[in-house]
Amino acid sequence: MDAEWDPRAEYDVSDAERESKKAMDASQVWRNPEFRMTERERPTPEDDEVLVRVKYAGICGSDVSMLETDDDGYVHYSAYLRLPNVTGHEFAGEIVETGDDTQLFEAGDLVTAEVTDYCGRCNMCRQGFNGHCENFEQIGFTIPGAFAEYVAVPEKLCWDVSALRETYETDDEALRAAATIEPSTITYHGLFARADGILPGDYHVYHGAGPIGLTGMNVSRAAGAGKVIAFEPSDERREIARKLGYEHVYNPIEHDPIETIASVTDGEGADVHVETAGAVTQTYPAIGDTLAETANVVHISNAGSDPGIALRKYQGNSAQLYGSEGHTGQQVYPRVIRLMAAGQLDNRPMVTSTFDLSNADEAIRQAAERVDGKVLIKM
Amino acid sequence: MDAEWDPRAEYDVSDAERESKKAMDASQVWRNPEFRMTERERPTPEDDEVLVRVKYAGICGSDVSMLETDDDGYVHYSAYLRLPNVTGHEFAGEIVETGDDTQLFEAGDLVTAEVTDYCGRCNMCRQGFNGHCENFEQIGFTIPGAFAEYVAVPEKLCWDVSALRETYETDDEALRAAATIEPSTITYHGLFARADGILPGDYHVYHGAGPIGLTGMNVSRAAGAGKVIAFEPSDERREIARKLGYEHVYNPIEHDPIETIASVTDGEGADVHVETAGAVTQTYPAIGDTLAETANVVHISNAGSDPGIALRKYQGNSAQLYGSEGHTGQQVYPRVIRLMAAGQLDNRPMVTSTFDLSNADEAIRQAAERVDGKVLIKM
Amino acid sequence: MDAEWDPRAEYDVSDAERESKKAMDASQVWRNPEFRMTERERPTPEDDEVLVRVKYAGICGSDVSMLETDDDGYVHYSAYLRLPNVTGHEFAGEIVETGDDTQLFEAGDLVTAEVTDYCGRCNMCRQGFNGHCENFEQIGFTIPGAFAEYVAVPEKLCWDVSALRETYETDDEALRAAATIEPSTITYHGLFARADGILPGDYHVYHGAGPIGLTGMNVSRAAGAGKVIAFEPSDERREIARKLGYEHVYNPIEHDPIETIASVTDGEGADVHVETAGAVTQTYPAIGDTLAETANVVHISNAGSDPGIALRKYQGNSAQLYGSEGHTGQQVYPRVIRLMAAGQLDNRPMVTSTFDLSNADEAIRQAAERVDGKVLIKM
Amino acid sequence: MDAEWDPRAEYDVSDAERESKKAMDASQVWRNPEFRMTERERPTPEDDEVLVRVKYAGICGSDVSMLETDDDGYVHYSAYLRLPNVTGHEFAGEIVETGDDTQLFEAGDLVTAEVTDYCGRCNMCRQGFNGHCENFEQIGFTIPGAFAEYVAVPEKLCWDVSALRETYETDDEALRAAATIEPSTITYHGLFARADGILPGDYHVYHGAGPIGLTGMNVSRAAGAGKVIAFEPSDERREIARKLGYEHVYNPIEHDPIETIASVTDGEGADVHVETAGAVTQTYPAIGDTLAETANVVHISNAGSDPGIALRKYQGNSAQLYGSEGHTGQQVYPRVIRLMAAGQLDNRPMVTSTFDLSNADEAIRQAAERVDGKVLIKM
Repeated sequence: MDAEWDPRAEYDVSDAERESKKAMDASQVWRNPEFRMTERERPTPEDDEVLVRVKYAGICGSDVSMLETDDDGYVHYSAYLRLPNVTGHEFAGEIVETGDDTQLFEAGDLVTAEVTDYCGRCNMCRQGFNGHCENFEQIGFTIPGAFAEYVAVPEKLCWDVSALRETYETDDEALRAAATIEPSTITYHGLFARADGILPGDYHVYHGAGPIGLTGMNVSRAAGAGKVIAFEPSDERREIARKLGYEHVYNPIEHDPIETIASVTDGEGADVHVETAGAVTQTYPAIGDTLAETANVVHISNAGSDPGIALRKYQGNSAQLYGSEGHTGQQVYPRVIRLMAAGQLDNRPMVTSTFDLSNADEAIRQAAERVDGKVLIKM
Repeated sequence: MDAEWDPRAEYDVSDAERESKKAMDASQVWRNPEFRMTERERPTPEDDEVLVRVKYAGICGSDVSMLETDDDGYVHYSAYLRLPNVTGHEFAGEIVETGDDTQLFEAGDLVTAEVTDYCGRCNMCRQGFNGHCENFEQIGFTIPGAFAEYVAVPEKLCWDVSALRETYETDDEALRAAATIEPSTITYHGLFARADGILPGDYHVYHGAGPIGLTGMNVSRAAGAGKVIAFEPSDERREIARKLGYEHVYNPIEHDPIETIASVTDGEGADVHVETAGAVTQTYPAIGDTLAETANVVHISNAGSDPGIALRKYQGNSAQLYGSEGHTGQQVYPRVIRLMAAGQLDNRPMVTSTFDLSNADEAIRQAAERVDGKVLIKM
Repeated sequence: MDAEWDPRAEYDVSDAERESKKAMDASQVWRNPEFRMTERERPTPEDDEVLVRVKYAGICGSDVSMLETDDDGYVHYSAYLRLPNVTGHEFAGEIVETGDDTQLFEAGDLVTAEVTDYCGRCNMCRQGFNGHCENFEQIGFTIPGAFAEYVAVPEKLCWDVSALRETYETDDEALRAAATIEPSTITYHGLFARADGILPGDYHVYHGAGPIGLTGMNVSRAAGAGKVIAFEPSDERREIARKLGYEHVYNPIEHDPIETIASVTDGEGADVHVETAGAVTQTYPAIGDTLAETANVVHISNAGSDPGIALRKYQGNSAQLYGSEGHTGQQVYPRVIRLMAAGQLDNRPMVTSTFDLSNADEAIRQAAERVDGKVLIKM
Repeated sequence: MDAEWDPRAEYDVSDAERESKKAMDASQVWRNPEFRMTERERPTPEDDEVLVRVKYAGICGSDVSMLETDDDGYVHYSAYLRLPNVTGHEFAGEIVETGDDTQLFEAGDLVTAEVTDYCGRCNMCRQGFNGHCENFEQIGFTIPGAFAEYVAVPEKLCWDVSALRETYETDDEALRAAATIEPSTITYHGLFARADGILPGDYHVYHGAGPIGLTGMNVSRAAGAGKVIAFEPSDERREIARKLGYEHVYNPIEHDPIETIASVTDGEGADVHVETAGAVTQTYPAIGDTLAETANVVHISNAGSDPGIALRKYQGNSAQLYGSEGHTGQQVYPRVIRLMAAGQLDNRPMVTSTFDLSNADEAIRQAAERVDGKVLIKM
C-alpha cells in the first residue's frame, strides 16, 4: 500500500514524523491511497526475528479504513501509519527461517503473532505497560505486514499454534483458524486483562457484531458466559451470529436494547457490556440503563465522539467502565490459543469470504461492504 | 424536620410512597421544609438495637439540601426521605442501653454507625450487595437520626470506637473525631472497596475539597498516597486544606488542572482521580487529559448532568472509571476506625464550627455557607 | 439419623454444646449412629421460610462419614452435627408453600438451596463473611435436611432453578440436574470467589475425582479451562471421568503426576491445582513441582494432616495457595445455575446410582463404596 | 570477591555453568571465598547502560552468606553466583555517563537500581514475568555490582531518586536514604505486587525484624497499616524497631506469638503476616493460629525446610499464602521512591553502622553479627 504524504494545512507535522514517514494520525497526512500487488524481495530475518511463510491473513477494519478516503482524498484511518508498507496484521503461517539469536522457535512451527513490537526499555515497558511502549512499531502499520507470502517478525511476538494441528487435523485448517486469533485477543484482553471480576455464568452483551464483536462473542462463550446477547444492525451479520449458534441476536433499530436486555436477562441486567460498535451515542444510554449490580463495561471500539455517561447509574449499580485497546499483555495470546486448541473457541464458521493473495484488492473491497464475518486472504 | 407532602403534578407517586410517606425523590414531593427543635420521648431500642447517647453529630451536604428549596418551595434533596423525621447521620456517642437480642456491645462502649440499614434477605443482600438492599432504610433520612440526644440503632450497624480513647485521650475528643468517620468512609469505600489496584505511592487528585473531599484527602494520605493534589474554588476550603498540611491545593479557575497536574506529577499524570465536586462538565475533561497509565477514576459526587467522557483516553491509558456511593461493604468501617486509632487519620483539624444541639438550626445555616471543613453539633 | 451423645473422656464439651446437642466436632461426641426411615410431620415454614417438596437429593461424603465409625463407635464426621436430625443437604425440589414474610418465591418455583444459614448480624456477617457466620446453622447437619419428602428452608438460601426446565425439557430432569448444583458450587467458590486471577484457557489439575472433583472438573471446563487433568486412584471414578469426556485422567499410582503434568502441559505446568483428594502428603509434593508461573492452588478437601509445603517453589513461580470451604458468597449459586441453564455445565452423566427414598439407607451404603460419580435419592 | 570453583562431588555441574562460571547453586560449587579491595578499571557503559558513581551501598544478608562457609569451606549462599565479581546490589549514586542508546537519564541524575536484568524476550519476559526471566543476570551476583566507586547498569533498571533531594535536603542524605530502597522493594513487591487485597488499616505482623523485616515494617506503616507487630529474637534489633517508633515488638521466645497477637489485635487476628525470619518451622504454626478472616500470608524469606501448613485453618479463615521473591514488577520501584519522597517512608534511622569503602571487609564482618538494622558502605 502507498499514498501521498500531503499533510493537511492545519496539521502540525513533527520532525520525527517527517523523517520517519510514520504519521501519528494517518487521516491528517496520507492522501490518495492505493493498494496493489508488487514483487518484493523475500525478507531476511534479523537476529531476533523469524521468517514466517504466511498461509492465511485476515482483513481488519483498519486495513479497509486505510484505503477509504474523505472528500479531500485523505484516508479514514486515524492512527499510526508509515507508507509505503505491506499491510495486514491478522495472520498465521509456518516458520521457515530463524534469526541467529532466536531461541523460542524452529522451522516448521506454526505461528501467529502479536501486532505491537515494544522496545522493552522505555518508561512504559519497564513498568510492564508494553502495549503502550513509547517506541512501538506495529506490524502491518508501521513495519511490513502479512498481506504477503513472507513476513519477518520479532520472535518475541510470535506464538506457537502447532497444537491446533491436533484440533483441526490439517495444517491448512489449523492456520485458517489461527488467522482469527488476533481479533479474538482484542476482546480477551478487554475482558480478562483489563476488566477484573468477570465471572463464569455472567451475562454478556455485545454492542456491535462485526468481526471484533463476533470473535468476542466466541471468546465470551468459551469463557463460560451464561448468555451472550448481541445488537447489530446489519442483517447479514446477525445471520452470521445466528449461524455461530447465538440465540439472542437483535437489530437495535427494531428491538429496543433496554427492553430486550431486561427481557432476556429476566430483569437482572447485563453483567458485562462490550462496546464493539463505535456508535457510542446510541450504545451508552442503553448500557447505562441495563447495568446489573457490579457490571463491567468494556470499551473496545474507536469512538467517533465522547458520549455522555450517566455516572449516577454506575454509582447505583456499583458498575465500572474500562478503556481497552490492543491485545498486548500477560498471557493473552497463549490463553486464546489454548481455548482454540481445546475446541472451546472455533471462529472458522464466521469466515464468510476467502480470496487468493492475487485477489487481495478484491478481498479488501469485499470487507469494505461490512457484511462479512471475516474475510481471509489465502497465500 | 418536617415538610408538606405535596407531590409535583408531573411526579408519579407510587402507592408504597403514599402509604409510607417515604418519597423516593424528595425534591418531587416535599415542600416548604422546616427544621426545629422538639421534645421527643427517648427511644426504646428494639431487640436488635442499641440506644446511643449522641455526643457529636456532623452536618452533611444532604442535611443542608433537605432544607434548601427551589422557587416552588420543593427541597433540593433528591433521594429517599420520609418526614417528619429526626435528621443527622454522621455521629458518635456512647451506648447506654442494649436490646434484648444484642450480642456485640454493652453499655459504655463508644460507637459510630453506618447509615444504611439492610434487610439481609432480599436478592441484593443475599448476593452480598447490602449497600443496594431492596428494602433499605437510612438513619437520618427514612428513620430517626442523630440530631438528637439519643438515637436507637440496629446493633449490626454500630462500630466500636473505644480504641480512640487511647489515641485522643478523652472520651470527648474520641467522639469528636469519631463523628467524622462516616464522611471518611465514603471515599475509603470508593478507593478500596470499589476501585481495585490503588497502590501505596500513587498520586491522588481530588476534584472538590468540601467535607467529603477533605476527609477523602486525609484517607488518601493515611493510605500512603505519594502526593495528594486538590482543586477547590472556595478560598476558605483551600485554606483549610492547607492547614491540614496539603501543599498542592489549587483554585481550578486560576490554575488550569491539566497544566497543574502535569507539573506537580512531573508529567506522569494522576494515578487516582476522585470526583467530589459534582461539577462534572468541568472536571471530566481535565480528568481525561491527566490520566496516568492504569489510572483509576472514582466518581463519588452527585452529578447534575451526564458528562461527555473521552473514551479514547481511557483506552490510551488503560484507565477505568468506577461509580461509588455510600460506604456499606466489607470492612470499610473497621478499617477507617483503625486508621484513626493508629493516628494515621486525624480529621479534627478540619472541624471549623461547633454548635450546641439547641443551636442546631444555626449549625445548618452555617453549613449552608459551604465554607467550612466540617460543622459539628455537640449534644 | 440419630446416635448416642457420649463425649469422649478427653473432649471438653462446652455448655452450649451440651444444651443444644450441637457438637462442634461430631467425632468426639456422637457414637453408634443409626440411620432409618421415620414418619415425621410435614414441616410448617416459618415466616421467612419456604417449604420445598424435595424431588432429588444427592449423597455427600459427609453424609456417609456421619454413619461410619471408628473402633470405639464414634462417627468419622468431625464438624458440626446436632442429632437427631434429618440429614441431606444437596437437593432440588419445588416450592409448595411460602412463609408469611417471604418475597422472592412462589409455589411452583423449582429451587435448590445453600447449606449454611447465616444470621446476617454477627461480626462476621456484617463484614460480608456470611460463610463464617458466628451463629450459623447448616441444613442437614444442625437443622433438618433433605433426605425427606419436605424440607423448610429460609427463603434467602433458596435459588430459582426454573430456567433449567428449558434446558432439560422436563421438571424431573431439571431437578435431577439441580440436585448436583450444591457440590458444583464448592469448587466454583474455590476457583472464582476465593482464588483470584484464574483465566480462561488455564490448565487445571484435579487431585481427586470423587463427587467434588468430578463436579469441579465440569465447572472448570464450563469456565473455559484449556485442559482439565485429573488424578484419581479409583478405576471406577477414572472411568466416569472419561465418560464425562475428559481425556487426561490418570491413576497417580501408575502415572507419576509430576511427569504426567509436564507431559500434558508441554512443560508449562499447571495454572490451577485443585486439591479434592484429602491425600495431602501425596498431593502437595507433586503440586509444588508442577506450578506454572503465577499458579493458583485451591485447597478444598478435608486434610487429615498438615502437609509440608515447599515455599521456595511458590516463590520461584509466583504461586499462591488458597484455603476454601463451603460455597457461601457473592453470586456463587446464581452463576453456577446460569452455567447449567446455558448448557455449559451438565452433571447428569456423572449420576451413577439412583435410589428411592425408601431405600435411602441402601443409597448411603452404595455411596460408602466410593466408586460412584454421584448417588442420588429420588423422592 | 572470589572463590575456588570446586563443585561438590555429588553436584551435577551443567555445561552452561562450567562455561560461564555462573553457578546455579553457589553453595555446591564455590569454596574458600575471599573478599578484598582491588583496583579495577572504571567500567565503560554499554550502549544501553549508564555509569553510576556509587555513593552508598547497603550490605544484604546474601552479601554476608557468600562469605560464610560450612565446614568444608563451601559458601552458604545457595543461589546464582559468578566469580570473581564485584558484589553489592543495594546502592544509590549519581549518573556520570550515559551509553549511546539511552534515553531516560542524563549525567547528574541521582538513581538507584533494580537487581535483576531481564532479557525482555524469553518466554517468561514476553508474558510479563520479567522477574523470572530465563536469561537473567543479577547485579552484584552474576555481573559486577556496587561495592565499588562506579557501576555500569542497564538504563532500564535505574530509577530516578532526584526527588529525594527535596525531602532530605542534601544529595548525601538523599543517597543515603536511597541506598535502602532496594530492601524496601522486597516487601512492597510481596505486599502489593504479589498479594492482593491488603487494605489500609489492616493489622500486619512481621516474623523477623532483620534488615528486610525492618524496611518492610516501614513500608507497611507508610501504606497505612492499622498496627505493625514484630517478633524478633535479637535484643539489638528489637531495640532498633522500637527506635523506629514501633510499639508492638516482641521476643518470640519470651512472648508467645499466638497469645501476643490475640492480645494486641483484640482477638481479631492478623490480616497480614510477613515471613522474614526463615525460621519457618517456628513461624508457620503461629501464623496458622492467628489468621484473621481473609488473611494474607506473604512468604519472603529463604526457608531452610518445608514447614507443615495447617490447611484447615486457611480454609476456616478464607486465608491465602503467597510466595514472593525479588522486587521486579509493575511500578514497585517508582512507588517505593514516591513513598520516600513523600516523607512516608524513612529508613535512615535504621542505618546503624556506616563504613568507608576501604573498610568494606569490616562492614561485612559487622553485618555478619546480625545485630544491625542496616550496615552501609560509603564511597
